[in-house]
Amino acid sequence: MKIALAQQNYHIGNFKDNTQKIINAIEQAKDGGAELVVFSELSVCGYYPHDLLEKREFVDAAIEGIHQIADHCNGITAIVGGPCINEESKGKKLFNSAYILAKGEVQDVFHKTLLPTYDIFDEYRHFEPNNTHRLLEINGKKIAVTICEDIWDKQPTSNKFAKDKIYTANPMAELSKLNPDLIVNLSASPFSYNQEDYRKNILLRNASKYNLPIVYVNQVGAQTEIIFDGGSMYVDKNGLVKQELNYFEEDFRIIDTTSEEVMIQEGRGDYVEKIYNALVLGIRDYFHKSGLTKATLGLSGGIDSALVAVLAVDALGAENVRVLLMPSKYSSDHSVNDAVQLAENLGIQHHTINIQQIVDRFEDSLEDLFTGLDIDVTEENIQARTRGTLVMALSNKFGNILLNTTNKSECAVGYGTLYGDMNGGLAVLGDVYKLDAYKMAHFINREKEIIPVNTIVKPPSAELRPDQKDSDSLPDYEILDGILFRYIEQNMSPEEIYAEGFEKAVVDKVISMVNFNEYKRFQAPPILRVSSKAFGFGRKMPLVANYKF
Amino acid sequence: MKIALAQQNYHIGNFKDNTQKIINAIEQAKDGGAELVVFSELSVCGYYPHDLLEKREFVDAAIEGIHQIADHCNGITAIVGGPCINEESKGKKLFNSAYILAKGEVQDVFHKTLLPTYDIFDEYRHFEPNNTHRLLEINGKKIAVTICEDIWDKQPTSNKFAKDKIYTANPMAELSKLNPDLIVNLSASPFSYNQEDYRKNILLRNASKYNLPIVYVNQVGAQTEIIFDGGSMYVDKNGLVKQELNYFEEDFRIIDTTSEEVMIQEGRGDYVEKIYNALVLGIRDYFHKSGLTKATLGLSGGIDSALVAVLAVDALGAENVRVLLMPSKYSSDHSVNDAVQLAENLGIQHHTINIQQIVDRFEDSLEDLFTGLDIDVTEENIQARTRGTLVMALSNKFGNILLNTTNKSECAVGYGTLYGDMNGGLAVLGDVYKLDAYKMAHFINREKEIIPVNTIVKPPSAELRPDQKDSDSLPDYEILDGILFRYIEQNMSPEEIYAEGFEKAVVDKVISMVNFNEYKRFQAPPILRVSSKAFGFGRKMPLVANYKF
Repeated sequence: MKIALAQQNYHIGNFKDNTQKIINAIEQAKDGGAELVVFSELSVCGYYPHDLLEKREFVDAAIEGIHQIADHCNGITAIVGGPCINEESKGKKLFNSAYILAKGEVQDVFHKTLLPTYDIFDEYRHFEPNNTHRLLEINGKKIAVTICEDIWDKQPTSNKFAKDKIYTANPMAELSKLNPDLIVNLSASPFSYNQEDYRKNILLRNASKYNLPIVYVNQVGAQTEIIFDGGSMYVDKNGLVKQELNYFEEDFRIIDTTSEEVMIQEGRGDYVEKIYNALVLGIRDYFHKSGLTKATLGLSGGIDSALVAVLAVDALGAENVRVLLMPSKYSSDHSVNDAVQLAENLGIQHHTINIQQIVDRFEDSLEDLFTGLDIDVTEENIQARTRGTLVMALSNKFGNILLNTTNKSECAVGYGTLYGDMNGGLAVLGDVYKLDAYKMAHFINREKEIIPVNTIVKPPSAELRPDQKDSDSLPDYEILDGILFRYIEQNMSPEEIYAEGFEKAVVDKVISMVNFNEYKRFQAPPILRVSSKAFGFGRKMPLVANYKF
Repeated sequence: MKIALAQQNYHIGNFKDNTQKIINAIEQAKDGGAELVVFSELSVCGYYPHDLLEKREFVDAAIEGIHQIADHCNGITAIVGGPCINEESKGKKLFNSAYILAKGEVQDVFHKTLLPTYDIFDEYRHFEPNNTHRLLEINGKKIAVTICEDIWDKQPTSNKFAKDKIYTANPMAELSKLNPDLIVNLSASPFSYNQEDYRKNILLRNASKYNLPIVYVNQVGAQTEIIFDGGSMYVDKNGLVKQELNYFEEDFRIIDTTSEEVMIQEGRGDYVEKIYNALVLGIRDYFHKSGLTKATLGLSGGIDSALVAVLAVDALGAENVRVLLMPSKYSSDHSVNDAVQLAENLGIQHHTINIQQIVDRFEDSLEDLFTGLDIDVTEENIQARTRGTLVMALSNKFGNILLNTTNKSECAVGYGTLYGDMNGGLAVLGDVYKLDAYKMAHFINREKEIIPVNTIVKPPSAELRPDQKDSDSLPDYEILDGILFRYIEQNMSPEEIYAEGFEKAVVDKVISMVNFNEYKRFQAPPILRVSSKAFGFGRKMPLVANYKF
């Protein structure tokens, strides 16, 4: 059987473009002689529309799009993802469905059984689960139509408390009893650098367990925070990957289930390279899907803003990135020089505004009110907020969207100023630990020095007071990131983290900083997610609570 | 049967205090001769702990608290809400449960069947639904133990698309077949000024339909954004409210199911008074549960900041509120005078800092960069951000938490400056439309002039440019609020709103502003929720999408 895998990047709610893109792939599949073309989960509307699914007009437009696509399905069957209205009198009003389109019409609809409602997933909010199982027959072949989670018989969990089977239903067990010839899976599975193998293993295990080939089509592209990485696959019944599509870009391939040909992705680089590619896609889609072209950021001479500048140039082009240097009396000469050097290496517009006079004026204005009180973090925050105001002025005047440069380590412990350096439309590095930021700098400089070496080798500093170093108030990043990864990604308890050799006092301090700073993260920009647990809507903690855990 | 209703205010994760509070009510119930004492949903941990429920130590501590409480249950039965571990090998790891405590031990556990996962509710994220039904027997009486949503056989919906029955299960229908004598309901039902009657009707309808009395115990107190209003009730089998506890405060009452006595809440005032009381509770609990005492805000002479000052004084005491006046060259004299007058009326500390010199310095610094470009919103934002920086400096130096004063109308259309007047730890009026803000001002001034009349009667203005009025860029608030309420609370389509007599061009403009400004609200402070649909986590819209609806 010749099957086309259409791995596409959709724009949520843009039914005109999504529909046209899907129709184009159907024509391409027909031209290539495919009998079947498979798209990803919720392809007609893009994954995930959230509460737009509560709007009748949104759902109607999606279904109208499905019918327009069906018009083009002659001589071929297409499986397209979209919402479907639940006509029963009880239950959630929608299903998350796979539409079977052929002979110019909707022939059938299959609904998703397992609705992920954890981490960034929120499907039970909008969808009713399917509870009946049957097969689709195309040209004599019996196909088990599944949607994403339906084949996730086990969940990745590093926590002893969580079960690896979070569903009581098991659609693959039911479907396999009906003796299908093939599994088709429409997915929207996001990138996570530390769970990539897990996803592939799920596919391989299902193929072997049921002795069935799997056609797996994943979505690609970023939807605000969430980055879908593609990598669609055809796995044979022995659990071998025979065909693997590109990552981080659209791709299309017609596979033949009778062929022994193997085409897989080699040399994809290490996890830092993958994160780099994910972030470039994340920035590009955030801008392009919002109708924006131009970015700005404050360049400090430090590593984080340097990385964001490089990523922005890769995503948007040097001509669309404009940076602002905002030294104060605490800024070292080398910081300014490093920032200028980077801007010149990248060929981007750069301007310098010294903030000292503005800061002095703020301090003069507050002098009466603060008489007799010690200098403290207040004065540091005034500097950060002055910079935040200046770079937002540039953003307002020129329409350049501000990119936030906070990394995950800082974001976790609240080492940043709300309404200052926490400003921005999109937080590029908010899911990248500081140690990985260094690795990314080395990756960027692998062929030539783009980021000045001095930026990489000098001790990190916020430069908000004389001779300040991050290490004055934070543990070394080796220790800090080690604790944070265990606490956030691995959901370990303090006791479990001590048991791995971290000092109790340090662990307790770090965890207390993480919890105390929930209020800052509440107001942070959306964070591009690259790990299995990012800050943002995939990690919901109450703000007002007695944290001890 | 004598039953105690314990309506309490819990601190999420503070097991020591919550447990002690529950034990105290058990002792009080015993002293009063009650056979049964009922607490609210998830009482031992507070509603709602969100992803703290993913932490093993949190759940263990909750269960440990349940056992400590059980030690005090001799000669009485207590029904206490808490999470319970699901021991099955499949399914979510927890149940949302009612623990039956008697003879010093946990006697039984009943689990919640209907798990709300819409608007602000997220229970399917953490809990497995119950699917077996049985009764609890106490002293010969058979009791149907239900948890909140279990008796919500219909959902309020103003949208033709939504079903009023969103669950396929119906626990009350199952339980009624077992012939109970009484329904007990443990609730955590939040305040919403436009759905209060709906909740009471649910109780009355269930009582009449099943011909059973209902003991309904609701939680009270604010958990960050969500305000639980109490109002626990005893409804007889004819659907008449016989006993009704206080609203917006803790309460305790022993009722006798054989008595005909009626004690209900009279004279609760109109919806504006209820919103006022809800907001005072919201501010007070945000501060007290966070261990904070002192608030600050910028006082502009306008109505919104005036209201927030009054609410803050009511919640925290005049001695804990400090305000900053920050006039510019565009501020009218009367604005400054009105603000000073209000501060004096309230007896709160006030300081004045003219922002003009700082603003001028910002503009000087940007002069080279902006040469030849027109004055636009950039310059207005610099003023707002200068104020935001000054009031945050005061917050940082004195530890006064900044209260945000944005109202719902502004928040909806993005009439505010990110990192400027959108700053704050808590948005007090973010769910209150401008017209309701005026009504609240009149309510506050009902006996004497606390808010200067001039603040109320003058045309609203941001005073960011000469002679600016809100009406320059927004429709009249009668029109604006009318459109917004239909679009947000009632989830109407543009066509449905036109059909109610609003001008198409105005509706389209307002809706487009709402959607365009999703990015601003993403970074807004938590908003105290008083309506059926507030901005915040109860309304999740994708940031990057093609909005047309």
